[in-house]
Amino acid sequence: MSTIHAEPLTAEAFAPFGDVLDIAGAPDKVINAGWCDRYHDRATLDFGPGGRAGISLFRARPRDLPYECDMLERHPEGSQAFIPMAPMRWLVIVAPDADGRPGAPRAFLPVEGQAVNFHRGTWHGVLTPLAEPGLFAVIDRIGDTPNLQECFLDEPFVVIS
Amino acid sequence: MSTIHAEPLTAEAFAPFGDVLDIAGAPDKVINAGWCDRYHDRATLDFGPGGRAGISLFRARPRDLPYECDMLERHPEGSQAFIPMAPMRWLVIVAPDADGRPGAPRAFLPVEGQAVNFHRGTWHGVLTPLAEPGLFAVIDRIGDTPNLQECFLDEPFVVIS
Repeated sequence: MSTIHAEPLTAEAFAPFGDVLDIAGAPDKVINAGWCDRYHDRATLDFGPGGRAGISLFRARPRDLPYECDMLERHPEGSQAFIPMAPMRWLVIVAPDADGRPGAPRAFLPVEGQAVNFHRGTWHGVLTPLAEPGLFAVIDRIGDTPNLQECFLDEPFVVIS
Repeated sequence: MSTIHAEPLTAEAFAPFGDVLDIAGAPDKVINAGWCDRYHDRATLDFGPGGRAGISLFRARPRDLPYECDMLERHPEGSQAFIPMAPMRWLVIVAPDADGRPGAPRAFLPVEGQAVNFHRGTWHGVLTPLAEPGLFAVIDRIGDTPNLQECFLDEPFVVIS
């Protein structure tokens, strides 16, 4: 079984797959009489022609490293943002598309204060906290048409830190 | 100067102003082979005819209780969700509309794991963390038309716990 190392989550490394949401760099605007920095409109949201934005909460049970991954999924009709509501360790797994199946996977370890937004149609692993409480706000597509493709891998892989 | 007590944040008490986002009660769906509970589509999002959803990050400096409030604002063109990215204490201030100005204000103290979504046009106080890190994801309207009305109060009020 192949093994991949989890990389630090940076906007540059993650760009082919989605957006990193964090407060690196200068704010776009200072509001509230100087009390608040606004990092404005940082995610490429796309809910397709028949969808709309929704906010859901996910509570996932923590996993451990090494983490064996045997399935990636994608949402052909919409982007999906995972926003941690506590500063826990968690894992982000993505892959480029290769003729309708996931290509070579990559894994990222966000630090405190980082969230991600997967671009529409991006192969990714399920929400994978590595610690409690596993609580995330999820901004994704609400709609009536199918929006989940799962791909079980011929060869699972293992993520290590 | 008048004084108001901050109340516990419950869905029922907050209903006239917006949605409480938390994992109270049963999940709407269990996903990821049983590893994750989904509390589905919990916010009434409304970005008006000329807007779209955006995800921004706000970093606000903490305030203290008692907190003196002399201004409330509203966004006539869109809802606004405040999602804490850390389990800090924070304050939510809202007021009903009274002929185009804020009526009697109310204040709420969320507990860990609670977020709020202000309905479109609801009078509310600015983002008010009571502790570090003051980091929130904000889901609100992105658009080119004016979407902020501020109302400076003739008589400020004080919020105590």
